[in-house]
Amino acid sequence: MRVRLLGTAAGGGFPQWNCGCANCRGVRAGTLAARARTQDSVAVGDGGDWFLLNCSPEVRQQLESFAPLQPRAPRDSPIRGILLTNGDLDHCLGLFSLREAQPLVVYTTPAVRAGLERNAMLQTLQRSRDQLMWKTLILDEEQPLAGELLVTPFALPGNVPLHLKATVAPSLEDNIGLRIRHGERRLIYAPGAATIDALPRDADCLLLDGTFWSDDELIRLGLGERRASDMAHFPVRESIAQLKAMNTRQKLFTHINNTNPILVEDSPERRAVEAAGWRVGEDHLELTI
Amino acid sequence: MRVRLLGTAAGGGFPQWNCGCANCRGVRAGTLAARARTQDSVAVGDGGDWFLLNCSPEVRQQLESFAPLQPRAPRDSPIRGILLTNGDLDHCLGLFSLREAQPLVVYTTPAVRAGLERNAMLQTLQRSRDQLMWKTLILDEEQPLAGELLVTPFALPGNVPLHLKATVAPSLEDNIGLRIRHGERRLIYAPGAATIDALPRDADCLLLDGTFWSDDELIRLGLGERRASDMAHFPVRESIAQLKAMNTRQKLFTHINNTNPILVEDSPERRAVEAAGWRVGEDHLELTI
Repeated sequence: MRVRLLGTAAGGGFPQWNCGCANCRGVRAGTLAARARTQDSVAVGDGGDWFLLNCSPEVRQQLESFAPLQPRAPRDSPIRGILLTNGDLDHCLGLFSLREAQPLVVYTTPAVRAGLERNAMLQTLQRSRDQLMWKTLILDEEQPLAGELLVTPFALPGNVPLHLKATVAPSLEDNIGLRIRHGERRLIYAPGAATIDALPRDADCLLLDGTFWSDDELIRLGLGERRASDMAHFPVRESIAQLKAMNTRQKLFTHINNTNPILVEDSPERRAVEAAGWRVGEDHLELTI
Repeated sequence: MRVRLLGTAAGGGFPQWNCGCANCRGVRAGTLAARARTQDSVAVGDGGDWFLLNCSPEVRQQLESFAPLQPRAPRDSPIRGILLTNGDLDHCLGLFSLREAQPLVVYTTPAVRAGLERNAMLQTLQRSRDQLMWKTLILDEEQPLAGELLVTPFALPGNVPLHLKATVAPSLEDNIGLRIRHGERRLIYAPGAATIDALPRDADCLLLDGTFWSDDELIRLGLGERRASDMAHFPVRESIAQLKAMNTRQKLFTHINNTNPILVEDSPERRAVEAAGWRVGEDHLELTI
């Protein structure tokens, strides 16, 4: 299977529109050894069939950056489906850009679907009866996608999206990871995880939550009072310690917040990540699994 | 006043994600004399105060393309307000990307605000009481923005957004144009108009609906059955004929659909537009009015 990282930043992207932290200032000015990143999304393909894992606000820019995702006919798309790991805006907002009456297949848990259905804008994807087809992701149940691709969703500790917190009761289905299998090859995609205890260990490639380096990252930078754990993100520095024994050929971090020092290619934190056998995901990176 | 065209394409952008028409294929391949464009939005500034006219899905990319719109402090924005001309997704979706707890001032008619409030995602801009401040645009009433900038909204014939059509009664406030004034200088911004009869004629600069060249553009290309008039867009070829006598120093088309032949820099339609004293808007163009 082909795996292309379309976007590797956390919500807000890197740089973030209203952020003048050292990382954002440095990447804008070109004075920092760091690359700009769009928001987290992955394309997985088998032959001419492609699936998006999450659908970022920057989906149009992301699709235009990768020819295999572009149309071959006057109205067309090789995207056979979109799988969502939660209802956060950085993972869902792009759905509303995939309109123009194009049929879409969207894979979600019932909880994530219910959250999306609280938006009148969803009607834009339902101009005809057949435009939007929902497929249900059932935890721990493997289902076929297309070609030889199969998916198994698994629960991960996470939060209800911020914009639903006041009105929706938390559920095990709010936040999931995805295991994508092609024959004996397995990709684990887990861009948001409050703990990593439930993470399957049998991956050939792991794309893991790399939002924050440390639990108190935003507090130290004076950019907020919330800890990584308050936002349901397990810090990178803990992950590399806890997963030392994990026997996985490729391990990468994605969904990286603009404040995270691992974005800086000559930082001690970046060196620590790489010394532990991990890579820091970046946009346009292609992996063969 | 400074005016910067952030995006000049109609909904879907140019190229459009699911479109393989001659224009989209050509601009992707680099074989056509045409430039890619993001979706319609304009920045208007006076000194260090900036306003966005509409907020496209690509707002992050647009803000990063123009340094005066970027933050000067750890959490900051020089954007003093966002004015919406209607509730169409290509004009509103970007609002949901301007989060991260940053205070926002959004200027709309009551009808457009009511449409936005039908989306649970709007809560993401209302995490604290002071985060989102609504300001009401009252037709034909001039109100101050910041610095010496003033705005007068005016009704234009248009449609209820597609995603609200089934549930909302049409209103005169669904679709408006904006007159932005700085002393004696006037910008008229009218990116969507089913007819141009109501267009104020006293502009120093006019940014007009350039969605389609002709009424039957999509039908001729086999890309749909709807006419420009069904979608509340007055064709460019009619506008240049009807506004021949308009005495305006700068006249530009914006909100240009991917199928429009005026996008092609060596097309007869582009030559006709330019021969009539108009320009075809393009991203990053800066105007001094």
